[in-house]
Formats: sequence, structure tokens, C-alpha cells
Amino acid sequence: MKRYEELAERVRGLVEAETLAVGDRLPSIRRMSRQQGVSASTVTAAYRLLESQGLIEARPQSGYYVRERCCDRLGAVPVSQPSQDARVPQVWEVAHRLALQARDAELVPFGNADPAPQLLPSAALLRRLRGLGRDAARAVSYGEPQGELVLRTQIARRLVRAGCSLHPEDLWITNGAFEAIHLALRAVCQPGDTVAVESPVHYILLQMLQGLGLKTLEVSTDPVAGVEVSALAPLLAAGRAQAVLLTPAFQNPLGCLTPPGRLRDLVELCRRHRVPLIEDDVYGELHHGSERPTAAKAHDREGWVLHCSSFSKTVAPGFRVGWIAPGRFALEVARAKFVTNYVSATPQQLALAAYLRDGAYERQVRRSSRVFADNLLRCRDAVARAFPRGTSASAPRGGLVLWVCLPEGVDAMDLYQRALARRISILPGHLFSAQGRFHSCVRLACGHPWGERFADAVAQLGRAAHELSAG
Amino acid sequence: MKRYEELAERVRGLVEAETLAVGDRLPSIRRMSRQQGVSASTVTAAYRLLESQGLIEARPQSGYYVRERCCDRLGAVPVSQPSQDARVPQVWEVAHRLALQARDAELVPFGNADPAPQLLPSAALLRRLRGLGRDAARAVSYGEPQGELVLRTQIARRLVRAGCSLHPEDLWITNGAFEAIHLALRAVCQPGDTVAVESPVHYILLQMLQGLGLKTLEVSTDPVAGVEVSALAPLLAAGRAQAVLLTPAFQNPLGCLTPPGRLRDLVELCRRHRVPLIEDDVYGELHHGSERPTAAKAHDREGWVLHCSSFSKTVAPGFRVGWIAPGRFALEVARAKFVTNYVSATPQQLALAAYLRDGAYERQVRRSSRVFADNLLRCRDAVARAFPRGTSASAPRGGLVLWVCLPEGVDAMDLYQRALARRISILPGHLFSAQGRFHSCVRLACGHPWGERFADAVAQLGRAAHELSAG
Repeated sequence: MKRYEELAERVRGLVEAETLAVGDRLPSIRRMSRQQGVSASTVTAAYRLLESQGLIEARPQSGYYVRERCCDRLGAVPVSQPSQDARVPQVWEVAHRLALQARDAELVPFGNADPAPQLLPSAALLRRLRGLGRDAARAVSYGEPQGELVLRTQIARRLVRAGCSLHPEDLWITNGAFEAIHLALRAVCQPGDTVAVESPVHYILLQMLQGLGLKTLEVSTDPVAGVEVSALAPLLAAGRAQAVLLTPAFQNPLGCLTPPGRLRDLVELCRRHRVPLIEDDVYGELHHGSERPTAAKAHDREGWVLHCSSFSKTVAPGFRVGWIAPGRFALEVARAKFVTNYVSATPQQLALAAYLRDGAYERQVRRSSRVFADNLLRCRDAVARAFPRGTSASAPRGGLVLWVCLPEGVDAMDLYQRALARRISILPGHLFSAQGRFHSCVRLACGHPWGERFADAVAQLGRAAHELSAG
Repeated sequence: MKRYEELAERVRGLVEAETLAVGDRLPSIRRMSRQQGVSASTVTAAYRLLESQGLIEARPQSGYYVRERCCDRLGAVPVSQPSQDARVPQVWEVAHRLALQARDAELVPFGNADPAPQLLPSAALLRRLRGLGRDAARAVSYGEPQGELVLRTQIARRLVRAGCSLHPEDLWITNGAFEAIHLALRAVCQPGDTVAVESPVHYILLQMLQGLGLKTLEVSTDPVAGVEVSALAPLLAAGRAQAVLLTPAFQNPLGCLTPPGRLRDLVELCRRHRVPLIEDDVYGELHHGSERPTAAKAHDREGWVLHCSSFSKTVAPGFRVGWIAPGRFALEVARAKFVTNYVSATPQQLALAAYLRDGAYERQVRRSSRVFADNLLRCRDAVARAFPRGTSASAPRGGLVLWVCLPEGVDAMDLYQRALARRISILPGHLFSAQGRFHSCVRLACGHPWGERFADAVAQLGRAAHELSAG
């Protein structure tokens, strides 16, 4: 983290604690520079960053002021209260159709939770692929069944930041995190088993569970702090779930971050009941603050956590490279991988290993995370200005999606249709539950650098929401 | 096919029809050149090719002679007679252990049925990867869920040679043929279902069937002409199999090629009983003669054939690119692919499309096939010289493996152990059945250009086989 980013973080802390209130003038650049013992240019850079994030504004000939935060008008999303019946999700067709539609490049892409192509380090990664010329035969031949050691070594190193002490031999390379989770489920579940998940939960996980013939048990989830231990505990005690599948870091769609204490309790709960905990950590690197959250795997002493992640949300979706640290289920996962597609492709593993080794990855991830953070702040702000009273929204500290709950009675599928008519893609809450919940919610993905087009789209969505809310 | 190859084929035909018998002198180069209306250098090249294949030999100051073919001493492998009980294969552990051992680069690699790294067009493929620089963002982003259209177009074109009339939209790209077959099985079977397979059958398919909880029903197979329609028909009529999984072209381990008439009957049989036929065509391109065999898919009028193949045996194992033409099961296969790993990686699809487009692929495949043909002839010849009387062997017209059956009573696992002690890898027949058959057989893979090291290894195997046969 650079000095100006540290300073910006400190100022943000003051605003969040309301030490600096809306409308307050910030110390002048000269004064701040003296107070903090940093250069004037560092202060300027920090203020500009905060301005770009919508937290402060410059007033000509006057200085910087804490901005009126429209977001404060947005209510907090309530903790979900799903019913306790387990069922096989039936979302496949509708989720597939809507997600495909969301990929239509003509639409304003609030529907699609991928990083924008221009945010990906395409040229740098292609350079690493070019660099394989020196090792051509290796790149074209079958690699190690577990995945290339050079890449597993880099991943193990990287995961130290997440609090994990993993050896390269603890990791298996997969075709993306999605395959990692698929293998984890195949390793620990039989068709007909029940998997406990967050509520709401990413529709793509519901599709996978449906495809594997697994039931889901949706568990009450706090939109700030993640799944409720008090809700999960009795379910596991009663033997009602054969596996738990969670996204503790910046869950999609809520963006919630399970705090370390709760995370430790969750891992301990699973260990005590001998229930495998599948951790989807695909957004863990995309933290907006200065610190990378600790992974559940970091608390795993007896191997009950199957940690899954990938490079798809950070640098290279199209490379399809992910990994799993399967703990005590290594043999089962290795078998599932083998019978699924034998081994992952070699070239992009070697290219990514080189990319991580030389430090380019870290810079890239911080850069995209700043863009996502900025996007989400602006999007949330725009929603607060445009949407009807009674709307609430998540306040994610990482990742790239915003969860917006409209006033009761507004059907998100109607909003989806009206959005589509205006060439805007969003996803209705219907997709994020197997129980037919969240009919008044929408997910807005913010993977593209903000601009007029997006601000205008939110304004249009707001008008449509007003119409539906009045109607 | 070049002119000298055509001529060599014609001479081979004369030898096979015994128009030219063992010991006969071939027409002189000058005479042959006049007779056939080709240049002397073409005749020389043809004779050299046949010499390299062990069919003829040069005698100094005398000319070329049809060689004494030791292979004739080898008996024909009998048609297999498996029992008719279906069972879940239990080969996983032993097959995995032996196959891993076979990958030990220190061993003479008769165990490993992959093309030798030096036969792969590594540099040419890496050049195509480098060429992606012009299209960097696309290569790094998620591609089309079905696979890149440019590649599907090339594959559809290529399959015209196999008699198939497929459109690019009939194809899905997978991570290798192995994943294609896996998806096909998941699309058409439920755990507990029974799949009819050849006998012997590739252990890797048994491992997959075991992993999916599917039973196998091994069907009597002719080592020249493939699975017996008369054996399969009553099983399908009795509803005893929910799917049929065959490798009509150069099956592994037998190398048999199902002739077009029988293939048509098989497709018709499956259609009549509405049983999906999964075709593993991964060796189809590796024909040793001049003609690419027709695929089962070519006879498929109602979409009951799921055609699976890949580039792993031809040009790039490590790229993990295969495909499936799923016929009427397109929706099921698309769903299975989606929930397994969403979409295949982009860069190598684009690189392979470019490689196929410019004709390099065809030249490469013909070159490797010639090497495999030569290897197999030499290996078969060496086996005939070295192994005990009563040994029989397959006579494959394509692919890269030889199936050798030792005299009754010799346990191939003993031969495997003795081979290993001599730093030679082979695979025992035990792996190629879920019924504990083929205990006297071994598979010798011939993916590496022949040389002293291999000739010597076969001689050593022969001595070991003699010891075991005497003991």
C-alpha cells in the first residue's frame, strides 16, 4: 500500500467514525502535510483518491469538504430469514437465460459480475505466454496431474496473506474456482445430500447444486457479517447438512465479509460436527480496504475446509485457472479431478506462475480493486439518489457487486424487464434463492469503470423503480 | 499423400496379398520407375519407407527383398468372451498407481500411450499462441460458452474426412476427449446405470465409469473388427445397458478398426433401442494407411451418437482441448459442461484454430502417424522374435499401442514387475477389464520413435517372458 493510500484510509476512518461530519472542511493540504509528516503531493494524491471515491468534494478556492452522502438515505439490508426446508434448486433454465442475456455486449452491463476486459492485464499475460517459447515442449505436453509445481508454489506464497500456511503439495490446480467447487462437492457429497449455503446465494452455485442433484439448505445471513453461526449450529447438530458451502470474503451477491471471530467459530462448528466446509474465496483478493481478509482455511486445523479460488475475477477469466486446497479430502478431490478431465492445461499455468513471480499480479489486483471500490461507491450513491424511499442496499467492502432491495411489493422481475427494454442488464433477486425469495431485490454488478453511461442507467432504473413502486 | 507414399502403399498391398512373397526380390528401381511412370527418386523414397517399416530389406549389390516377417510367427489374438454380468469397475487404485509409474521418465516408456514430446509441434503451436497478441483482450476473457466459433468451424471442416456433416453449432469444446466422454456419460446416465464397453477396454474409461458410479458390461470384441454386433444386440434388446461406449477407430488397447458395415449396424442397433452411443474417436486421425476411417457419427441420422475427440493424441496433450458432438443430447451436455467448469480456456482454442486453418495440422498428423506405424511394425517384429512360442499380438492399422497375449499361465503382473526391475514400463492386461480378465496380456505403447533402446527393451521383456513361461 502506498503512502497516499494509507493517508486516504485514515481520512476515510475519520469520516466513517463521524469525527469529520458531512459538510466539514478537511485540513488544507499544507496543514495536513505538516500534521502527518508527509509531502504535499502525497496529501493531494490522497484527497484526489477520496474525491474519486465520492467521499469528499473539492470546492473552488475553498478546499476539500466531506460530501453529503446520499447513501445514508439507503436503509440497511435486513438479515435474511430463509425457511429451513432443504430442496434441490430449480433455477437452471431461468438463471441460464438471464445470465446469457446479461452477456449481451449491447446492454449496460450491470448484470454481469465479471471484471471489464479493459481492466484485465491482457498484454502482460500474453507476454508471459510468449515467454514460454523457451519451454515449448513442456507447454504443449501433459503437465503434472496436480498442476504445475511452479504455479502451486506461487499460490501457496500468495495465500500467506490470507493467513494460510499451505505447501504446494496441498494444492490442486483446476479449471477455475467453479471446477474447484464442483470437485469439492463431488468429493464430499452423494446425490441427494444437502448442502448449507448463505441466503441469498450466487445463482451459479445453485445451478451447480441442481446439476449435481444436491439439495440446498439456505441459512440466515447478515449482509454485513455473513452467515449466522446461531442459525447454522442447530442444523449441523441435527445432521441436516452433509456439507457447508460459503463465501466468507465479499459474498456474491451481498458483499458481506465474515469477521475473523465468526469465521473461526464457523470452522470450529464444522470441525466439531465433522462436516466439510467448502470455502469459495474467489473475491478474497478484491478487498477495498488495505487488508486482505483471512480465509477460513487459515483457521483449519484438521483439514475440514476445502478452500477454492481462481484467477478469474482478478486477472484472467479466459485462462480458466483455479485451485483447491482440499485438506483431508485430497484423495477424493484428486480422483474427481482425474475422472473429470485428467489434468488442467499447461501453458496458462506457466504464464500465470511467471506473472505472479515478478510482482505484476499484486499491482494489478490492487488497481482493479480500487476501480471496483470506486464503482460501488458511485453506484450506491446513484441508487440512493434515484431509487424510491424504502430502498435499502448492501455496503460491500470488497468484490464488485451491489445488492439492492426495493420497497416491498416491487417485483424485481418487472424491473428486470423494464431495464432490458432500456438496454440495461441487471439480475433479479429471484435467481439468488431456491426458495423463491428476494423478489424485491436486484443485483447490480460494477465491474466496469464508472462513467456517464452507468450514472444514466441507474437514473433510468430509479425512474422505473418509482413507476413500479407507485403502480 | 505424396507420390512415394502412394507407391509404398501399393507395394505393401502386393506383399499383403502375397503377390510378392517373403524372400522375393522387388523390381529394380529403374524397372519400377519405368513400370509405374514415376521418377527413380520416388521409387527410392518408397523403398526406403518400406524398409524403415520393416517390410522389405536392402541386400548390398543385390536390391530390395521382401523381408521374412517374424510377425507371422505370432498368433492372432482371439475374440474376447467376457461374462455378461455388469459391475462397477474397481480398478482405480491399481490403474492410477501403475499409470503414474509408467510416466516415470527414467523408464523405457512402453507403458505410456502418449505421443513422445519430440513428435509434438511445440514450436509451431507456441508461435500461434504468440500470434494472439493481436487479440489479447479476447484471449484473456471468458470465451463463448460452447467454445470458440473459429475452432468449432475448423473441427467441423476436419470431420468431413470422417464422413460427418456437422455444423459448428453441433460442437461443444471441452477440456480434452476425456472430459467430452465424462460429460456424455453425465448427460445420458444416472449413477447405477450400466454402460456397454469393448473387451478389453482402456483402463482410463474404467476409472471414469467407476468414478461416476456406473456399471460396465463388457462385450465380446474382435481384435480386428471391433465389438461384435451379435453380442451387443441381445444385451440392448433386453434393456441391459443404458449407454454404449465404444472406440470404433483403433481402439485402445486392441487397435481394432470397426469396418463401415459393422459400424453402420452398431449405430442402427443403438438407434433402434434408443440407447445413446458414445463414440471415442481420439485415435481416428492416427490411421497408418491412406484413408481416415469413417466415424460412427457419420451414420447417425437421429442424433443418438455422442462423438468425442481431442487434439491430445495428435498435437497438444497439454492444451487440453477436445470436443463433443452430442447429437440429441446437446442440452444435457451443455448443462453438464456448465456446471463442471463453465467454459473452456480461450488462448489455446484460438491458437489451435489458427494452426488447423493454415494446414500445418494435416502435415503434422500424417508425420506422427507414419512414426507410430513404423514403431508398431518394428515392435511387433521384435516381439515375434523375442517372445515365447504361443504369444499372439494385435496388428493395428492405426493408433500407437500393441496388445500382446502371452501363453496361458504367464501372469502379466509378474512380467510387469520384472520389466520394472529392468527399468521398462509396460501395462498388464489386468487393468483392461472390470472382470479380472486378460491376466496373460500386456499393452505396449509405441509413441516414441523407435531405436536401439526400444529394441533392447523388447528383447529383455522377451527373456523375462521366457523365464515366466518356463517357470
